[in-house]
Amino acid sequence: MNDLSKYMQQIGKRAKIAARIIAKADSGQKNKALAVIAEQLELQEEKILQANALDMQAGQEKGLDAALLDRLELNKERVAAMAEGLRQIIALPDPVGAIEHLNARPSGIKVGRMRVPLGVIGIIYESRPNVTADAAALCLKSGNACILRGGSEAKHSNQAIGNCIRDGLLAAELSVDVVQVIETTDRNAVGELIRMEDTVDVIIPRGGKGLIERISKEARVPVIKHLHGVCHVYIDDAADLQMAKSIAFNAKTQRYGTCNTMETLLVSESIAAAVLPELAEMYQAENVELRGCEKTCEILSGCLAATDDDWDEEYLAPILSIRIVNGIEGAMDHIHQHSSGHTESIVTSDYSQAMRFLREVDSSSVMVNASTRFADGFEYGLGGEIGISTNKLHARGPVGLEGLTTQKYIVLGDGHIRQ
Amino acid sequence: MNDLSKYMQQIGKRAKIAARIIAKADSGQKNKALAVIAEQLELQEEKILQANALDMQAGQEKGLDAALLDRLELNKERVAAMAEGLRQIIALPDPVGAIEHLNARPSGIKVGRMRVPLGVIGIIYESRPNVTADAAALCLKSGNACILRGGSEAKHSNQAIGNCIRDGLLAAELSVDVVQVIETTDRNAVGELIRMEDTVDVIIPRGGKGLIERISKEARVPVIKHLHGVCHVYIDDAADLQMAKSIAFNAKTQRYGTCNTMETLLVSESIAAAVLPELAEMYQAENVELRGCEKTCEILSGCLAATDDDWDEEYLAPILSIRIVNGIEGAMDHIHQHSSGHTESIVTSDYSQAMRFLREVDSSSVMVNASTRFADGFEYGLGGEIGISTNKLHARGPVGLEGLTTQKYIVLGDGHIRQ
Repeated sequence: MNDLSKYMQQIGKRAKIAARIIAKADSGQKNKALAVIAEQLELQEEKILQANALDMQAGQEKGLDAALLDRLELNKERVAAMAEGLRQIIALPDPVGAIEHLNARPSGIKVGRMRVPLGVIGIIYESRPNVTADAAALCLKSGNACILRGGSEAKHSNQAIGNCIRDGLLAAELSVDVVQVIETTDRNAVGELIRMEDTVDVIIPRGGKGLIERISKEARVPVIKHLHGVCHVYIDDAADLQMAKSIAFNAKTQRYGTCNTMETLLVSESIAAAVLPELAEMYQAENVELRGCEKTCEILSGCLAATDDDWDEEYLAPILSIRIVNGIEGAMDHIHQHSSGHTESIVTSDYSQAMRFLREVDSSSVMVNASTRFADGFEYGLGGEIGISTNKLHARGPVGLEGLTTQKYIVLGDGHIRQ
Repeated sequence: MNDLSKYMQQIGKRAKIAARIIAKADSGQKNKALAVIAEQLELQEEKILQANALDMQAGQEKGLDAALLDRLELNKERVAAMAEGLRQIIALPDPVGAIEHLNARPSGIKVGRMRVPLGVIGIIYESRPNVTADAAALCLKSGNACILRGGSEAKHSNQAIGNCIRDGLLAAELSVDVVQVIETTDRNAVGELIRMEDTVDVIIPRGGKGLIERISKEARVPVIKHLHGVCHVYIDDAADLQMAKSIAFNAKTQRYGTCNTMETLLVSESIAAAVLPELAEMYQAENVELRGCEKTCEILSGCLAATDDDWDEEYLAPILSIRIVNGIEGAMDHIHQHSSGHTESIVTSDYSQAMRFLREVDSSSVMVNASTRFADGFEYGLGGEIGISTNKLHARGPVGLEGLTTQKYIVLGDGHIRQ
């Protein structure tokens, strides 16, 4: 075993011990730690910004692109936002220990389910240093120990934030190993972490599709993954035209770079000529490039011809593909084939069509008459979110505190034995 | 790609198409299929027993041991029990489509969660042919397509049962691909199945620890696994002596070969001398071999010395290891180190100790004053069970219909867009 392996194994062992401590901490103790972390982020603002300046300088020297540098950069507002985020997590109800469905059985025992932490969570992320505070806080509140592996370009920032976290854990008399920020920037540390099945219970990667695919492929530990968002809006024959235009416009243009942004608009053939021309004008006024199927191009003269690849593309940009389909069946077939399983929405005034779409579309969020942009933890009322899962098992959709827990059965007897 | 790969890929593709069909079938249609399958099992009893006779003969010629032959054998009673099992599943509520926690959000959208099937379930099992009917029925009722891979020694029996399933699917006008019984006995079929991530959503192996460990190691598809049961009863200082003896006796001797049988008894030091001698007599009257720690052997003269390996052993036999521990802390430390995460029980009259044990022990079932033998799907009221999961993610503990489903978010709007 090489030095890196040994180092990571030690981190795993410490996390596993810390997991037992944080699992039994009560809400008051966990909230105290979070409050002190928030306070320390504010008190140590200068140190954090100095550390971030080192990262920014190194990033510029390495020639990182502007978007990456923007994600890496911290300023007073961003540090304040981190502290505010922690205070919001303090205000959320503690999921741990909640008991559901406790019922008596014919044998006399009472059987229910208790919500408990997952144990040790490994989080792998890229350049944003605020993830260090966010992820640590969500794990801590949900009673989990965590191992944080941020991008090497943010190493000074992450360690400075990690110091504030350590102060909070100490103040609440919790083990500092509850949140461990990995110090080495050795790329192989990720490879070790995702294979530590004996000490790590789940891996949550946050980053680009490439990172997540690679991790999913190589991991021995279960991965809660969010691959990408190829989201659809389907305008049904029975749609209200005004509503359809408003939702389709909002789902694309309210923000381009988010995973819940619509990438493909599906329109039922019978309504296409009535809805598309005005909608196209609205998009073009925002400089959204339109790529349509053959029938769409017949209706919209300024539309480019979509290629087969367009239907699987997450543009994250002012580009929209449009396809005219043969009613709800055609829409659901297209979604079944091309969706990434993130979020789809139907616009319709027909009750039966709405119910069919809700029931039959197999994505983490399925909507009726609403913009796909609503698919996130805050809008759903989960408080914070650690990501949006496109897994089917365990957590699906926005993952908040509850997604970081599991349930165990509890049985209350009074001397009951099996006959 | 070789022929086996092609064959398995075809099965996967057919299953994926069938999954969309069964996902939207209503309860009446699914129950009709189940009713006809039950009826056909009874009508085709003779054919099934003839097929089973071929398997039994081949098994005897191959020199399979008596326990394996017993598991393989079908008779009139066992066929009737299969049909009865199906009728019990008909009576269970359909989990699919149930909506929970539908609440309005400040934005005006309503957000809830709808229970939906997992999709395609691959089940890998060993010699018992009744699993073919049980597993197919549970998957069908929960709206999933399934691919069944039974033991090669049961191939004729499984195909005969598969014919009844096919008749039921046809009678309910469902695709026969909803339940596919793999015909090839090529051992590599399992290796293919567990890597078909594009078409299979989850693998459930049912069998010995070796099979399950191998599958977990090689699978690319998520596995709901049940490794083994090293279950504990802890007799606390504050235990009622009569109750402690009754539960500890029942948890070991009610049945030896089940995964929820106690394998190690933990006794608090202060109560050991009061409880162990009489309990040992009760075990010895049943010819249970006792293997104790040093302190236990001081109290019980007829006790063998336990080795380190005993604490991790699933005996599935009339053997019990006994360890005297330093109160609840010592018990929980032992459990943390040696439990397989299946089921643990505390016997105590002390409220605080009971609450601590419930909260801090991290197993799929945690009990107070009840025999570990209660840990199963029927006793918990789940109706049937497809296995007992020792996973932390997704299904944990006995897995019934609900464990074969997942949830998606649904959003009901009325033209809502994101501001």
